[in-house]
Amino acid sequence: MNIADIDTHRLLELKPEVQQQYEEFKSRGLKLDLTRGKPSAEQLDLATELLSLPGEDYTDSAGTDTRNYGGLKGIVDIRSLWAELLGLPVDNVLAGDASSLNIVFDLISWSYTFGNNDSPRPWSQEDKLKWICPVPGYDRHHSITELFGFEMVTVPMTSTGPDMDAVRQLVADPSVKGMWNVPVFSNPTGITYSPETVQALASMETAAPDFRIVWDNAYAVHTLTEDFPVVHNVLDLAEQAGHSNRFWFMSSTSKITLAGAGVAFFASSAENLSWYEKIANVRGIGPNKVNQLAHARYFGSAEGVRAVMRKHAGSLAPKFAAVIRILDQRLGGLGVAQWTRPTGGYFISVDVVEGTASRVVELAKQAGVALTGAGATFPLKRDPKDQNIRLAPSMPTIDQLELAMEGFATCVLLAAIEAAEAQ
Amino acid sequence: MNIADIDTHRLLELKPEVQQQYEEFKSRGLKLDLTRGKPSAEQLDLATELLSLPGEDYTDSAGTDTRNYGGLKGIVDIRSLWAELLGLPVDNVLAGDASSLNIVFDLISWSYTFGNNDSPRPWSQEDKLKWICPVPGYDRHHSITELFGFEMVTVPMTSTGPDMDAVRQLVADPSVKGMWNVPVFSNPTGITYSPETVQALASMETAAPDFRIVWDNAYAVHTLTEDFPVVHNVLDLAEQAGHSNRFWFMSSTSKITLAGAGVAFFASSAENLSWYEKIANVRGIGPNKVNQLAHARYFGSAEGVRAVMRKHAGSLAPKFAAVIRILDQRLGGLGVAQWTRPTGGYFISVDVVEGTASRVVELAKQAGVALTGAGATFPLKRDPKDQNIRLAPSMPTIDQLELAMEGFATCVLLAAIEAAEAQ
Repeated sequence: MNIADIDTHRLLELKPEVQQQYEEFKSRGLKLDLTRGKPSAEQLDLATELLSLPGEDYTDSAGTDTRNYGGLKGIVDIRSLWAELLGLPVDNVLAGDASSLNIVFDLISWSYTFGNNDSPRPWSQEDKLKWICPVPGYDRHHSITELFGFEMVTVPMTSTGPDMDAVRQLVADPSVKGMWNVPVFSNPTGITYSPETVQALASMETAAPDFRIVWDNAYAVHTLTEDFPVVHNVLDLAEQAGHSNRFWFMSSTSKITLAGAGVAFFASSAENLSWYEKIANVRGIGPNKVNQLAHARYFGSAEGVRAVMRKHAGSLAPKFAAVIRILDQRLGGLGVAQWTRPTGGYFISVDVVEGTASRVVELAKQAGVALTGAGATFPLKRDPKDQNIRLAPSMPTIDQLELAMEGFATCVLLAAIEAAEAQ
Repeated sequence: MNIADIDTHRLLELKPEVQQQYEEFKSRGLKLDLTRGKPSAEQLDLATELLSLPGEDYTDSAGTDTRNYGGLKGIVDIRSLWAELLGLPVDNVLAGDASSLNIVFDLISWSYTFGNNDSPRPWSQEDKLKWICPVPGYDRHHSITELFGFEMVTVPMTSTGPDMDAVRQLVADPSVKGMWNVPVFSNPTGITYSPETVQALASMETAAPDFRIVWDNAYAVHTLTEDFPVVHNVLDLAEQAGHSNRFWFMSSTSKITLAGAGVAFFASSAENLSWYEKIANVRGIGPNKVNQLAHARYFGSAEGVRAVMRKHAGSLAPKFAAVIRILDQRLGGLGVAQWTRPTGGYFISVDVVEGTASRVVELAKQAGVALTGAGATFPLKRDPKDQNIRLAPSMPTIDQLELAMEGFATCVLLAAIEAAEAQ
């Protein structure tokens, strides 16, 4: 969206109307938040039963008293349920505490300090460290690699996943140690990697022997439709390609049950798990098994998880539809923005006129609508084209969301008009 | 306990009787475990109510929906309750997930990688790293400093805490970066630091500006009597002495509610917390607040915690009494062992004849009684005198415990007799 390619004549004709709309928007005194991918209270209510579980029966199916210490890998009840849901062997699935992000941080931190199981030396002792970041991407991923001093090299996201030609070129550099990926309903674009992209990531040659793909399958079952996406068994694909330790596969119930109090999962090769467990066993004794048992009881089965996700879709799909309807109505055909139409996940990604994303966020803020900061989806929070904005429709009610989106569309137009005038 | 100082004549007279006792002990086919400080099922049953909490009311007293993301410092309900219990200001108390050991590991790991808030450089970039370990001490502490490559320098525990002359001498070395401490009902000796020792640790000068004391108050309220120990506000003492960032104060409900599913606490200066939170905020979004709310509801108040601890004492005190009674009856006056008589905590520490601890553990194992490995209470699991054995009486029933302790006493005697014969 470059202003040079836009019919600014038509845009400037809209100016009086758009300005009036913006003044009206501001005068409403709104206080709405579209910043984070948080589930709404309505969604969290789906898990009310969980708040009284496990109840008096605290023994898992293996006879373990979940209340006591022990069991670094988590209890088999929830591990086997999750393995079935994701199509992975139970032996390769570890169940942890509530946050898969915590586990990712530790994996990178420990690779940095000690080296991982394929490292010639600790990552901290390499001259240079680089990490591949498909953009736009997830800000919390970038924050981790930023903290550990990686140079974050970006590749563009396409409709089938990251640009694999760019990826293959980058991994020929031995200082490239890993890559962020949200392969299903990606944050923020909502796109799902094609089978070809998945296969290419599993089979590509990398110069670094200890290269790792963080496969953050945060939205593996988070459909907005009747259909669930295919979850590829990347552990198997990688092993067949001779790269059995390539994937750190992450998953969690954060956006299925309770956002801050779910169960996180780490699936990987036996060697990777063994390396992780060796250090995790020094860090502590094991995860919260009581919460794991509560979750196993709440779901009952893998199909039970899908049943919960259909209810989430019932709450989320109308919100996504409202966002897209308003974007279509207000911005369609004007050439001032492009947006994704995801069939799952938590976000809609909007590209506005180059150089205006931060202005849009500022205008919305002045009208009481908090948007994710411009640039947030890029490493170091720097969007080189200042054009990407991530919308998170889950938290507000439909009414609030419609108000916010009408205002958002107005801000996009107003910023584009300002850009046209400054041209 | 050196064999040279023992009346071996009398000991050798006992040989036929002791050997027969050992054969009888072996023939019972026992399978008992005195290895770990785990609460028994009877103790865990005290928290049955917690397994159905928080129930449908998931909002904390500040109006936070505990089910959703956010709140790195934990919820105020449990933080204020714990602050009152420990006599600390609530602002200095952070509530986390279930394990305080996890937090300790991260504090050391992040000091190693990034340096802490007083470090001239990351600990990993120092030429040499040393850590003070009072011995006997807690094996899981030693494992952490071992993993990060610290040279673990030991100081003897006295009846009033670590030998402070030795400590003061060691901290004059700038490569000494920290010190392990379990100040109340210490693991494994059960001793509680005197006010003078506490004051000395708070006020001593250290060569390293980023020196830290891990103040693992794991047993702060774990009395076996009617009396609760004084919990010193070391944050305040250190601040008064001009060392406000000295203490990392750890606590948890692991041995109060559910061993694997409690709430951990980290109390420290504002600067220390701010440093920790900055990195923890990259590691993740925040702890399990639902479990924190469940705990706040279960306890009700600081006095509620003490009421629970009186019930634990009701279960544990008879077990400790049984252990000490049998040690007194079987080994008293023979000079072959010394043991502690703790009024709280989880352990009894036994020093046997020098050079025989591993033999005692081996003899017990052959009879089906698992003891904590000899040497486990020393860094690198090497007890230079091979004399210390940690007994953990909590898990077995009284009947089992009496059987195991009769057998243990027999093993101590038999090993001493063997040592006398080899002399």
